[in-house]
Amino acid sequence: MTAGSAPNRNTLWGRAVADELAAAGVDAVCITPGSRSTPLTVAFDRHPGVHVFSHLDERASAFFALGRARRTGAVTPLVCTSGTAAANFHPAVMEAAQSRVPMLLLTADRPPELRDSGANQTVDQEKLYGDAVRWYKDLPEPEADDRKLRSLRTDLARAVSTAEGTPAGPVHLNVPFRKPLEPVAVEGGVPADLPRLAAEGRDGDEPFVSTTAGHPMPDDRGVRRLAEALSAERGLLVAGPADPPGPDPQAVTALAHATGFPLLVDPLSGLRFGSATRVAPVLGGYDGVLANGAPADWPDPEVVLRFGASPTSKPLRKYLAGTDARQLVVDPAGGWREAEFTATDLVVADPSRLCGALSRHVGGPDSTAWRERWEAAEAAHWDAVDAEERFFEGRVLADVVDLAPEPSTVFVSNSMPVRDADRFAAPAAKGLTMLGNRGASGIDGIVSTALGAGSATTDDLTLVTGDLAYYHDMNGLLALGRCDVDATVVVVNNDGGGIFHMLPIERFDPPFTGQFKTPHGLDFEPTGALYDLSFARVDGDDRETFRDRYRESVSSEGTEVIEVTSDAEASHRVREALADEVAERVAER
Amino acid sequence: MTAGSAPNRNTLWGRAVADELAAAGVDAVCITPGSRSTPLTVAFDRHPGVHVFSHLDERASAFFALGRARRTGAVTPLVCTSGTAAANFHPAVMEAAQSRVPMLLLTADRPPELRDSGANQTVDQEKLYGDAVRWYKDLPEPEADDRKLRSLRTDLARAVSTAEGTPAGPVHLNVPFRKPLEPVAVEGGVPADLPRLAAEGRDGDEPFVSTTAGHPMPDDRGVRRLAEALSAERGLLVAGPADPPGPDPQAVTALAHATGFPLLVDPLSGLRFGSATRVAPVLGGYDGVLANGAPADWPDPEVVLRFGASPTSKPLRKYLAGTDARQLVVDPAGGWREAEFTATDLVVADPSRLCGALSRHVGGPDSTAWRERWEAAEAAHWDAVDAEERFFEGRVLADVVDLAPEPSTVFVSNSMPVRDADRFAAPAAKGLTMLGNRGASGIDGIVSTALGAGSATTDDLTLVTGDLAYYHDMNGLLALGRCDVDATVVVVNNDGGGIFHMLPIERFDPPFTGQFKTPHGLDFEPTGALYDLSFARVDGDDRETFRDRYRESVSSEGTEVIEVTSDAEASHRVREALADEVAERVAER
Repeated sequence: MTAGSAPNRNTLWGRAVADELAAAGVDAVCITPGSRSTPLTVAFDRHPGVHVFSHLDERASAFFALGRARRTGAVTPLVCTSGTAAANFHPAVMEAAQSRVPMLLLTADRPPELRDSGANQTVDQEKLYGDAVRWYKDLPEPEADDRKLRSLRTDLARAVSTAEGTPAGPVHLNVPFRKPLEPVAVEGGVPADLPRLAAEGRDGDEPFVSTTAGHPMPDDRGVRRLAEALSAERGLLVAGPADPPGPDPQAVTALAHATGFPLLVDPLSGLRFGSATRVAPVLGGYDGVLANGAPADWPDPEVVLRFGASPTSKPLRKYLAGTDARQLVVDPAGGWREAEFTATDLVVADPSRLCGALSRHVGGPDSTAWRERWEAAEAAHWDAVDAEERFFEGRVLADVVDLAPEPSTVFVSNSMPVRDADRFAAPAAKGLTMLGNRGASGIDGIVSTALGAGSATTDDLTLVTGDLAYYHDMNGLLALGRCDVDATVVVVNNDGGGIFHMLPIERFDPPFTGQFKTPHGLDFEPTGALYDLSFARVDGDDRETFRDRYRESVSSEGTEVIEVTSDAEASHRVREALADEVAERVAER
Repeated sequence: MTAGSAPNRNTLWGRAVADELAAAGVDAVCITPGSRSTPLTVAFDRHPGVHVFSHLDERASAFFALGRARRTGAVTPLVCTSGTAAANFHPAVMEAAQSRVPMLLLTADRPPELRDSGANQTVDQEKLYGDAVRWYKDLPEPEADDRKLRSLRTDLARAVSTAEGTPAGPVHLNVPFRKPLEPVAVEGGVPADLPRLAAEGRDGDEPFVSTTAGHPMPDDRGVRRLAEALSAERGLLVAGPADPPGPDPQAVTALAHATGFPLLVDPLSGLRFGSATRVAPVLGGYDGVLANGAPADWPDPEVVLRFGASPTSKPLRKYLAGTDARQLVVDPAGGWREAEFTATDLVVADPSRLCGALSRHVGGPDSTAWRERWEAAEAAHWDAVDAEERFFEGRVLADVVDLAPEPSTVFVSNSMPVRDADRFAAPAAKGLTMLGNRGASGIDGIVSTALGAGSATTDDLTLVTGDLAYYHDMNGLLALGRCDVDATVVVVNNDGGGIFHMLPIERFDPPFTGQFKTPHGLDFEPTGALYDLSFARVDGDDRETFRDRYRESVSSEGTEVIEVTSDAEASHRVREALADEVAERVAER
């Protein structure tokens, strides 16, 4: 395309945005319809290298983009019109900020002179997401001007590299446009002698500017000092939920191997599933083992090396807080993600590189006895889980992980599915990527995030969600058809907020049932007809039927919702009984 | 209740919040379930004077509260837990800010030491809504302390009076709590000798502090000067969308009477329907009359007095901008709501009081000829509309206004229903309150806002919405059962964004159909089974069937959705033809 062919400055501007984003590696955008954003929408629609996912609810659109970026580590920009549309992005922006997922928000705006003037659909979009974004800029008004276009191209490249930087997160560009918004000819709008570089960008789809980002690493002395700290008999490696795209399993397991320490892996760490589980003692049963506190005769660890976000497991967090181990928190962005305030060292480093480097330097006393203690407890946990014959919600997670074809992406909702995955989804050497929204841990946007993640791969996609999260983002199901995603959606339906059975409020009724458990009585079957998916209801007790339906669904085209009816309270009692059982088995050994 | 009976400081704190809000006139709150907000939820649930509307989607909850306040002018506080829940309020906060609707957001938060620590569901909620709120305060941590409790009680009273002040709008109180959140006994948490006033508030449900708010008015000389400005032959009174609770019809019509000027009333002005239309020349056909510009032989007005927000009608705004009349914009908050920048005077005054005062002072040349010109054009418009036999979407609005029982609240969605109401819903001396979200003019939260408005009155409730807005807030339909609201929901389904047919982008396809019109093909019938409502589909051409269904629905219990299928483009062509027809009729007179 040449500048001369741009009928007006808005068209030129929109094209420059689309071209630079594509040059920066963007291959898809999420767009919701609106008038003010027309120059951007037209440009993306016409760009051969950018796929457009068209959504109708901005909240769902933003979570869909979040899901894509969570799965891939690469940004999928968002486009919306002016007004409340942009505010609907806010929940996903918050999640992206908390869980370090790249996001780029292009919010169209009225031209500056109309701000605070009473003009229709004109709101204050400046710094709309406050401190939740890594970078905010109010772009200048479009103009066919050499310096302005250079600034625009630079800003777009910066936006992508910042969104995908360390820490990754949301970037907000507010983009004002004045009419005409459509690609209609405006005489004199785009001068014929506009410098080619500004107007058309670099040749061969090269980006206007490139960023080369360094990775933080201590120097050799620092590495050796840390390796010394790890030279202990009793150590733990703890991998919390990963910042996308996640750590390098080889590097991490190499360190586990070199130290001999148990490697405790969160279900969202990117380390619980995959071939790396074959080469190191990867443990996933800690949440059950520690549910009633650590076994009485266990000595404290001497040193703990942690990376990723704060672990999902509250028992693990409490256990770590209760030891007087030296605790090293590794964070590439220098973030403080340790809310018990018992950490002793912050190491600003890329976890994979650091693990790799440390594994070449560590060497200490024999950890075998200590490790075997953890492995025995782990085995006791999985034995107890396997032996449990009653239905409970955790079984659903265990079955999904067991049956999911390879490769699969399994998305687990807050609030119970991710906890059940943590406790009941055993580490396995299979090609399975487990994801969740564990930044702000909301129950909003779950369907959309899962479908977004699914849209980014050829994996089979399974979503395990509760009924409240399913309800909250039913609008997100529209993406199945519009965005051509197939999924198996397992809805564990306990008619309300099952997690509240885990809290002391359970004993106060009222208001427990009316204001916390909040049963809704929704019959979700009509969502099948509404969103053109097949819907099956399975009684939780009927495990074999669930397993059959699940197998059928993942092996066939189209989307199936499998609703598993469940009694939240009964399920929770089984969880408690299992924890007691595990504690007993561990004590007996 | 006595302080001594509060088992812990959180319970005491929550009670003080509920008691003071009730004393300030609050009779209902909207709550979404969550753990961190437990002390507030428990207190409201137990308060005999406060009704709890329990919602599951915070976005819908906030719009529901907005709808109640829009209908009544009184605030319905919102309670949510920490994290993304609060971000889901943002779209409604924006609308409340723009359209001056009272709103009070009580967002529970983690205690300060957990902020920015990596703790779960802990996000930065400080100043979350930026400049969109009238007041923000991060409340201190709960403590059974005399001064703290006095500050809390004062803050709650201030919050209500600020939210309902001039201009009304959202107020955000961020409310941190530390565990235990439930009403469990904590020894020493609440000392027995806590001063009674701080602990329990004033006797007899009196508020702890009261605010007496003055209303801005020019002094006598100022009023006389303005009255002189209105002493002209050709003047117009223009009432835009009202700030709740809306202007006093008597005062406004008194001024219309005294000046003899036509009174042009927006459908959302609170003046188009009601008995006041009998006593003054209330005109509602201007959007059709001016659609093709003002008739060629019309002289400009000499003076225009405007109040309320910027009129919905673009033809009217353009007409006013094109005259060289002296334009006085009356705004009680001194807001500048005139985006054409052709106003000459800002009058900071309460519109009703000012109209009343002016009507006692005006007196000028005879306006009869000028007024009759407008009245004749108005008659030509309604004659043409009545004579039109083809179906078009505006007919739906005309029929609803015609058939709605008295008293009715009729909520009209953006983007087309409010415009169709403007042009095709004739002024009528019936008890009908027409509302819309015309602050930020989003298509989000429409169902919830309407149901919220309905929940606040015993009026019959009708919502007229397009299919995109219906889809966007389907979650809001849950309030029908949960909040016990009955409604007739008319969905004008043209399968996508009909408004884009009015824009130049219509001529560019692609991307028109895929990215703007965005047909979704959704069959909404299953929403009937999902939300326990009856669903009827009526062909737009079959006017009598629609009228019958509508009559049936409003006269029976329960909620009915009446979907009117429509071809957006054909409808728009009828709108254009009607405007041409009116222009011709006016020119002929």
